[in-house]
Amino acid sequence: MRRRTCIATVSLSGSLTEKLAAAARAGFDGVELFEHDLLASPLGPEEVRDLAADLGLGIDLYQPMRDIEAVPEDVFARNLRRAAHKFRLMARLGVDTVLVCSSVSPLAVDDDALAAGQLRRLAELAEEHGVRVAYEALAWGRHVDTYDHAWRLVAAADHPALGVCLDSFHILARGTDPAGIADLPGDRIFFLQLADAPSTAMDVLQWSRHHRCFPGQGDFDLPGFLRHVLAAGYRGPLSLEVFNDVFRQAEAGPTAVDAQRSLRALLEAAGELAGESAGENALPAPTVPSGVAFAELVTPDAEPVSALLRALGFARTARHRGKPVTLWEQGAARVLLNTGTGGRGGDLTLAAIGLESPDPAAAARRAEALLAPVLPRRRAPADTPLEAVAAPDGTELFFCATDRAELPSWTADFSPTPGERDPGPVERIDHLALTQPWHHFDEAALFHHAVLGLRPGESVDVADTYGLLRSRVVTNDDGSVRVVLTVGPAPGGAAPVQHIAFATADVVAAARRFRAAGGRLLRIPANYHDDLAARHDIPPAELASFRELGILYDRDERGAFRHCYTETVGRVFFELVQRDPGYEGYGAPNAPVRLAAQRAAATGR
Amino acid sequence: MRRRTCIATVSLSGSLTEKLAAAARAGFDGVELFEHDLLASPLGPEEVRDLAADLGLGIDLYQPMRDIEAVPEDVFARNLRRAAHKFRLMARLGVDTVLVCSSVSPLAVDDDALAAGQLRRLAELAEEHGVRVAYEALAWGRHVDTYDHAWRLVAAADHPALGVCLDSFHILARGTDPAGIADLPGDRIFFLQLADAPSTAMDVLQWSRHHRCFPGQGDFDLPGFLRHVLAAGYRGPLSLEVFNDVFRQAEAGPTAVDAQRSLRALLEAAGELAGESAGENALPAPTVPSGVAFAELVTPDAEPVSALLRALGFARTARHRGKPVTLWEQGAARVLLNTGTGGRGGDLTLAAIGLESPDPAAAARRAEALLAPVLPRRRAPADTPLEAVAAPDGTELFFCATDRAELPSWTADFSPTPGERDPGPVERIDHLALTQPWHHFDEAALFHHAVLGLRPGESVDVADTYGLLRSRVVTNDDGSVRVVLTVGPAPGGAAPVQHIAFATADVVAAARRFRAAGGRLLRIPANYHDDLAARHDIPPAELASFRELGILYDRDERGAFRHCYTETVGRVFFELVQRDPGYEGYGAPNAPVRLAAQRAAATGR
Repeated sequence: MRRRTCIATVSLSGSLTEKLAAAARAGFDGVELFEHDLLASPLGPEEVRDLAADLGLGIDLYQPMRDIEAVPEDVFARNLRRAAHKFRLMARLGVDTVLVCSSVSPLAVDDDALAAGQLRRLAELAEEHGVRVAYEALAWGRHVDTYDHAWRLVAAADHPALGVCLDSFHILARGTDPAGIADLPGDRIFFLQLADAPSTAMDVLQWSRHHRCFPGQGDFDLPGFLRHVLAAGYRGPLSLEVFNDVFRQAEAGPTAVDAQRSLRALLEAAGELAGESAGENALPAPTVPSGVAFAELVTPDAEPVSALLRALGFARTARHRGKPVTLWEQGAARVLLNTGTGGRGGDLTLAAIGLESPDPAAAARRAEALLAPVLPRRRAPADTPLEAVAAPDGTELFFCATDRAELPSWTADFSPTPGERDPGPVERIDHLALTQPWHHFDEAALFHHAVLGLRPGESVDVADTYGLLRSRVVTNDDGSVRVVLTVGPAPGGAAPVQHIAFATADVVAAARRFRAAGGRLLRIPANYHDDLAARHDIPPAELASFRELGILYDRDERGAFRHCYTETVGRVFFELVQRDPGYEGYGAPNAPVRLAAQRAAATGR
Repeated sequence: MRRRTCIATVSLSGSLTEKLAAAARAGFDGVELFEHDLLASPLGPEEVRDLAADLGLGIDLYQPMRDIEAVPEDVFARNLRRAAHKFRLMARLGVDTVLVCSSVSPLAVDDDALAAGQLRRLAELAEEHGVRVAYEALAWGRHVDTYDHAWRLVAAADHPALGVCLDSFHILARGTDPAGIADLPGDRIFFLQLADAPSTAMDVLQWSRHHRCFPGQGDFDLPGFLRHVLAAGYRGPLSLEVFNDVFRQAEAGPTAVDAQRSLRALLEAAGELAGESAGENALPAPTVPSGVAFAELVTPDAEPVSALLRALGFARTARHRGKPVTLWEQGAARVLLNTGTGGRGGDLTLAAIGLESPDPAAAARRAEALLAPVLPRRRAPADTPLEAVAAPDGTELFFCATDRAELPSWTADFSPTPGERDPGPVERIDHLALTQPWHHFDEAALFHHAVLGLRPGESVDVADTYGLLRSRVVTNDDGSVRVVLTVGPAPGGAAPVQHIAFATADVVAAARRFRAAGGRLLRIPANYHDDLAARHDIPPAELASFRELGILYDRDERGAFRHCYTETVGRVFFELVQRDPGYEGYGAPNAPVRLAAQRAAATGR
């Protein structure tokens, strides 16, 4: 069946008007209206109702009422008065369900009979006003902090206007087994709030307030959780109640798209979008990319990067028939150099990536169904049609079928250029590293996973001397596609750079060739190599070469990694890597040294 | 005795050269040299040694060596080889003490005899190289995670080149009672690292990496801790090993000053700076301000703010004899309006605060001893000499003795202007709210506490719809000086604003008078007042006035708070507050509504 999707207004930043517009644009069916968003809005309740309706949004939940139950009678009488006021407000808003969180009040007593009795009286009042109450156990509720306790109270209160609200955060953060949810009567689950979170040992209130994230961006088993809820027979909306310090500062539009994408991927992971029953929600299956077709660099001035590519051993092998784009090749590595559109800010930029796809059309259909912006298939009438979408950071992703007979190939738009092709040291593209805009790191990881079908690795923090750098790798199974997503410290830092790492069988030879051809390698301090000598048994002659060329070294249990960097041109630099077959990393321990050396090269400090 | 002060290079951002310069400028005697800072530096070890010496800095510790002890013999042999390399490096650096942290290696075994034996062999090797080893228990050490366990191993190893390093974070974060430290032999405590941290229930490794702060900025009892260490007879340096996500991004210079100030305040709090024994470190005692003498606004265009002050009931009562500064008074509230220097960016700015001081000269001496920038005592030859310093956010703080016979008074520079003074509704300045620059919130709180002797309250997070807003109040004992320090979300947000809150006995009357005089009040959404009616018993007539005028309401157990806001002019707005005697807050629950209303007024959304 088609599942209704909602998002809490507290999950988006901005004014209520901006939040509603963003939710509607991202394809949500409704919202949870958070009380503070209404209080801070100049729109009256009827105006909010009409605005939501105009946007095609329902208001599925009003939230929250707090500290209602298990209190002395005089306090409860005041609470009922307050509730009656909110129930009248809900009628004006056109919302029929209100969230009541389990009490955290110091006045609340540990008395289930009292709590159930007061919840029943609340439900009676709600029924008079034509609304219903969804009761939720907060993980830090004073006496009620588990979903089954909340359910026991609801069952004891036994009133049709009273049910439970299940929030994945409150249930999974406590390590509760959600399997018992499947035994609840589905029609008494009035609402479902979904949030993921990274595993952490942290006070649960702080964890909840600052670190919730969208499904698939944390460590909870939300597909398993959702299956239990659906097994109970729940038919209501799936709603995201997610807030963290980042979303509060991010723009509402992209956050809402990220949110909707996470829900679609969650439904798929829970087995809800397979087969015919999925209906209009059905997602085309993922088609995992099988290789990197090309990396496309954009620059207004081809000369510096051409010299650099030539020194790396690349040859210009073809030219686009209709645009100022040239193809550079070496081994299986292909780089497009585009001087047509100018880079961002005029600098050299890594603007596009071609991914070999088993089925480019299906890949594009899936991307579109997951809200990736689809780019025009043809840029010019004469161009071969190409499927392409934009990643969250603006990088254009082309789904390619390079030189496959049955499908259009981007190479058809290129004419070979004459000239010798000496075999060079570069074998292929080892990985691409893309700096993500602040606020969009988790979004990028989810995008690459859900849309492209790449597998995300662990998130790694690197303490650069100017701030924390977070990075996460997404790969396909055979490692022929590796993308490193990184995010720097707070906004306002140095302009982000991107890089392309080329694989070689002999980094020392490749680096020497590069230097002999006039290329400039990043200088690595001698102290680094002194330390290397203390930490590893490296033959003196090899270590001398590392020193001379600025080659960095890392190893894990299965092999070694040798790598060096070119100077930075515009916003791009290149890396030469020699990867032992078993080594799975990217030289992360060397990142602070590389960053400091790049900073020194840029600033002279 | 004079205590040597150090700071770890990892506590400061930037290149090693920048870090050393900042530490020297802030008056530190030495540094802990963090290995990665050396590895990333283009300076050779001898150059680092010479640079530090030229700056008057010692290198008091090299850190760290890890995973040394309690390992199989073949692993230990490799560790010794690595250690010998580092000991030779230390000779080149001119540093005689190395930090060895308790092992976190999965290879380490739980065998105290093995650990002590290997530590002894390490110490023998160290002695051969003329260096010594300070062994520290990490709170997350695999088998050794308490200071007394580390000490037992050191005692068992029994070698003069081996001692312990005590780190307040690792000891206090585990809740260990530090009293036993006083029984250690002081000459075997080779090093002392000091860090504070906010109380939190969090994984201790994450807590340590991301949330350490300088002494006095967290919740640890560092004066008590330090007293135990000094009671043991420790004579070595006091060193700050503090790092967090903010410092990594902040500029090294202000961080180093903040750090040195925190150490001086800590020494004072530990009773180390009292009496003659304190020597050159002695701090003049705090002289707590007893009131607000004035608030000074700077603007190139006096007209809009003059109109606003007039509408609030202020009268222009005097004019500076030599500068374009006028004095505005109402009740005990005084505002200076300065059109001489132009505001930051040309906008109206709250640029200076006059604080009544029992002893202005002593207050300035203390501020200077705590590294506050001292401002010139006379701006012009004819001016009355005034003691003034700059706060971390650039606000100028004047220590005043207004109209006290025995001391120079700033009022002597002003000539009264003729005119009627109608009694107005404003009685005095209730509080001043200063937005702090990103990165400097904890520094500001420490400054106001240590330098001015104001008492900091709890830190409060307010979830604005565009980001988290943190605020902290500093006050004197009778509440006649109240300063609210706030910090917004990440940099790049809206420009910070400041405000002056005026106390009145009748906010409704004051607001009406303001409006009748042409003033514009901030409009508060009707939804807010609807909610107020549901939450509180407010007489309908009063509530109607609140609605009409945009008055906000809060109450605690002891009283109510009624307040409203003027429009914003430049970077400043005014608040009118009616505070019941017992109410101690600032209407924090209303802050999101106020912020949304201000944003709506500014952007029209």
